[in-house]
Amino acid sequence: MAHAHGPAPEGLDAFFAPRGVAVVGASAEPGGPGHQIVAQLQRTHYPGGIYPVNPRATEVLGLPCYPSVLQVPGPVDLAVVVVPAAACLVVAAQLAARRHQRGDAAAAVVVSGGFAEVGDAGRQLQDQLVRTLRTAGIRLVGPNCVGVADAHVGLTTSFDLGPYPAGGASLLSQSGAFAMSFLQWARPLEMVGLCKLASVGNMADVTLTELLAYLADDRCTRVVGVYLEGVADARAFVQTAARVGRDKPVVVLKPGRTEQGARAAHSHTGSVASADAIYDGAFRQAGVVRARTVSEFYGAVRAFERLPLPSGNRVAVLSAVGGPGTICVDEVAAQPGLQLAHFSPRTRKRLGAVLSNLAAVGQPEGYVDMTGAVVARTHGDALRILLEDEGVDAVVLLTPPPAFLDEEEVARSVLQAYRDQPEGRRKPVLVVITFGDAALAARRILEKGGLCTFEFPEEAVRVLARMVEYARARERLRS
Amino acid sequence: MAHAHGPAPEGLDAFFAPRGVAVVGASAEPGGPGHQIVAQLQRTHYPGGIYPVNPRATEVLGLPCYPSVLQVPGPVDLAVVVVPAAACLVVAAQLAARRHQRGDAAAAVVVSGGFAEVGDAGRQLQDQLVRTLRTAGIRLVGPNCVGVADAHVGLTTSFDLGPYPAGGASLLSQSGAFAMSFLQWARPLEMVGLCKLASVGNMADVTLTELLAYLADDRCTRVVGVYLEGVADARAFVQTAARVGRDKPVVVLKPGRTEQGARAAHSHTGSVASADAIYDGAFRQAGVVRARTVSEFYGAVRAFERLPLPSGNRVAVLSAVGGPGTICVDEVAAQPGLQLAHFSPRTRKRLGAVLSNLAAVGQPEGYVDMTGAVVARTHGDALRILLEDEGVDAVVLLTPPPAFLDEEEVARSVLQAYRDQPEGRRKPVLVVITFGDAALAARRILEKGGLCTFEFPEEAVRVLARMVEYARARERLRS
Repeated sequence: MAHAHGPAPEGLDAFFAPRGVAVVGASAEPGGPGHQIVAQLQRTHYPGGIYPVNPRATEVLGLPCYPSVLQVPGPVDLAVVVVPAAACLVVAAQLAARRHQRGDAAAAVVVSGGFAEVGDAGRQLQDQLVRTLRTAGIRLVGPNCVGVADAHVGLTTSFDLGPYPAGGASLLSQSGAFAMSFLQWARPLEMVGLCKLASVGNMADVTLTELLAYLADDRCTRVVGVYLEGVADARAFVQTAARVGRDKPVVVLKPGRTEQGARAAHSHTGSVASADAIYDGAFRQAGVVRARTVSEFYGAVRAFERLPLPSGNRVAVLSAVGGPGTICVDEVAAQPGLQLAHFSPRTRKRLGAVLSNLAAVGQPEGYVDMTGAVVARTHGDALRILLEDEGVDAVVLLTPPPAFLDEEEVARSVLQAYRDQPEGRRKPVLVVITFGDAALAARRILEKGGLCTFEFPEEAVRVLARMVEYARARERLRS
Repeated sequence: MAHAHGPAPEGLDAFFAPRGVAVVGASAEPGGPGHQIVAQLQRTHYPGGIYPVNPRATEVLGLPCYPSVLQVPGPVDLAVVVVPAAACLVVAAQLAARRHQRGDAAAAVVVSGGFAEVGDAGRQLQDQLVRTLRTAGIRLVGPNCVGVADAHVGLTTSFDLGPYPAGGASLLSQSGAFAMSFLQWARPLEMVGLCKLASVGNMADVTLTELLAYLADDRCTRVVGVYLEGVADARAFVQTAARVGRDKPVVVLKPGRTEQGARAAHSHTGSVASADAIYDGAFRQAGVVRARTVSEFYGAVRAFERLPLPSGNRVAVLSAVGGPGTICVDEVAAQPGLQLAHFSPRTRKRLGAVLSNLAAVGQPEGYVDMTGAVVARTHGDALRILLEDEGVDAVVLLTPPPAFLDEEEVARSVLQAYRDQPEGRRKPVLVVITFGDAALAARRILEKGGLCTFEFPEEAVRVLARMVEYARARERLRS
């Protein structure tokens, strides 16, 4: 195994590129996290050593099981700990001993809950845990988390994230459920490619800010999505975000607008919440893209992962469905950062030549209603014309699952028009396919081809507004 | 056939309970609307006569085809017309003649486009069409629409709505695509039961207001959802909505907040748009529930269709996932119309007895974080306790697809707790199951059992806010 013979990874690399992983609390019986984590590592074909640790088992899923981390033979850079909170201190002491003796064991993910989030006794336990690990030079992610993953390496410490399409989106989250939720939601249509994931839980040691700084230099990360409940080093977090933002977008979802939300966050991860308005202003300064809802977060991370940034805010709306098209135009006009494009006379003429005479062009400016009389090819023909208009920076295309057309043909025609744009001068195309699950084949082709599909027109427009917002902020951050 | 021998239906009943339907422009070849409409009527097992009409065919889908409506033998109360715009005038003349000779043919749905929505020439055509039909006493829905449906009767004039779960939601829409989109979206999980549907298109004769008034007295309609681009009789529409609202909620989605949106609406259905602020104020007065997004419209119609109204605005949030729970609490606190419930000492004590010691109760007030340590039964146990607290008017329950639990067991436990509430004193329960498609079996059980499931916490909270808003308005309208 290549991993086993390389040098020990430094700093946070021990979490994402460990030569070997010990799963402390691994169990031979299915049904618990300690069993599942080993199973998931096998499913992702993690190329390093997988070492179950449990004094009450000799084998887990076909792998030899060791009584403690001290007995594990190969290099173990990362330990995943799933034993009850009180027992974690013993494990920490063993890890410290191992690090002293062998020089590896530089990183620990403590999945178990029962620490700062449950009150004072838990907080004391957590403080002891951190002290033991820090003294030994071991970094800690957690406790109370699902830990880390890297889809390119084939690594996960989660109990329900198996092999995942690799891509450019990295996620940092103070909620394991939140991060998993996004990935599972996007999985069926492969709507997002994952790079690195870190669920930080109580953030007793490794902070969001450190991870964010780490991702700034991570070559495969194109966008960072952060679910943030509250950090002690808010200023440092925002400064780091501004630095990252010069190259890649940072999308943040942060509850805690209300006092009650802040209290819920506190009881969840014991996190420190500052006044929301301070975050809000700081985010704006730092070019952080703040998503307003979970769905907007999903959409924005997705769009940044695969679409080019718009070079301006002039939006064309191209629709085969009148009602959703109307809603879309209304939403574009209502977004302060966006405006409807003005078509050139040439564009109008060219559109006239490919559309049916029932179609309406430029009523209002920037809007094309192809009407239900459209055929599959027309989708691509009209899109290509709009993308070739220098007055258009982005296109939102709306279509139902075609009742009388071949949906895959519609999708291929749209995709071809997008791809025909010269490399480096591509413009974002957001495709709204209404009707939920009724056009999955079309959505799959479009997503696989690098476009983003949405079910609701407002969703697509709001995501586009976030893209324009970031593109502007990036210019400012770079100047 | 019972239909064939009954008396001719009066007024708008001819659209929803016709004794026979003629499909003018029916085609023997698959692929066009004229063929599909006949196929859909067969699929819904429409119990009246189905009469394809087309001079160039002798048989369509096993049914005899007639050269014109004048030759159709049985009673024809409704004619669905899918011939090109110009040919519609000839059909109208034949319908008028038939009505004169036979006394039936009281209603026509003109599906074809090419009328007022395409400009002056089309508008003239439309005026002539209406004149011919009105003179003969024939009411018209359309043109430029998908027409009508009744899921209880098994009737549809649409080319892509087959058999649909019957229920209490009626839809009126100035966009065929919008209405179809909602139904198709909701279909896989049977998330909404349909009563009547009318896609009104250009509204050349039968108006939204007339249909709304008609639904006021419709026994199976429990909620009316309206997609509204603009009506000439705005005052009458709002007055009618207020009258309907005394008994059943009217949920409206209306684009046209912006001038550009209003122009797009105009080019879509040639509809008259008034200033949006006027509508907004009038809606509030009339107790109309205004949905802000397509997704909120879907959610609100659905919730009103199956859930009881809350008798107050005190919301409990019960969560098995910290992050989404925090987001949910934040959203409840941020909604002006909602507040977090205060648990009674008894409730706190009872919750303490069923929850794990990792759980957090009342941090903040109204919030229960069961944590990932929850088991299937606990979902129902905790929900029952909350529903039995007189200080709780509604519950939002959040859970991921259980990694280590049986998802159907979770769903059944939740459903049982809801059903154990005494009939007539039930409280709304909105269930958020994150992770998209990963827990379809659980969602199916809950939806079938009469609850509403959501993917996003904010979505559920906003829908609940609309329910509270309507419950208050109804009291005012009734007093």
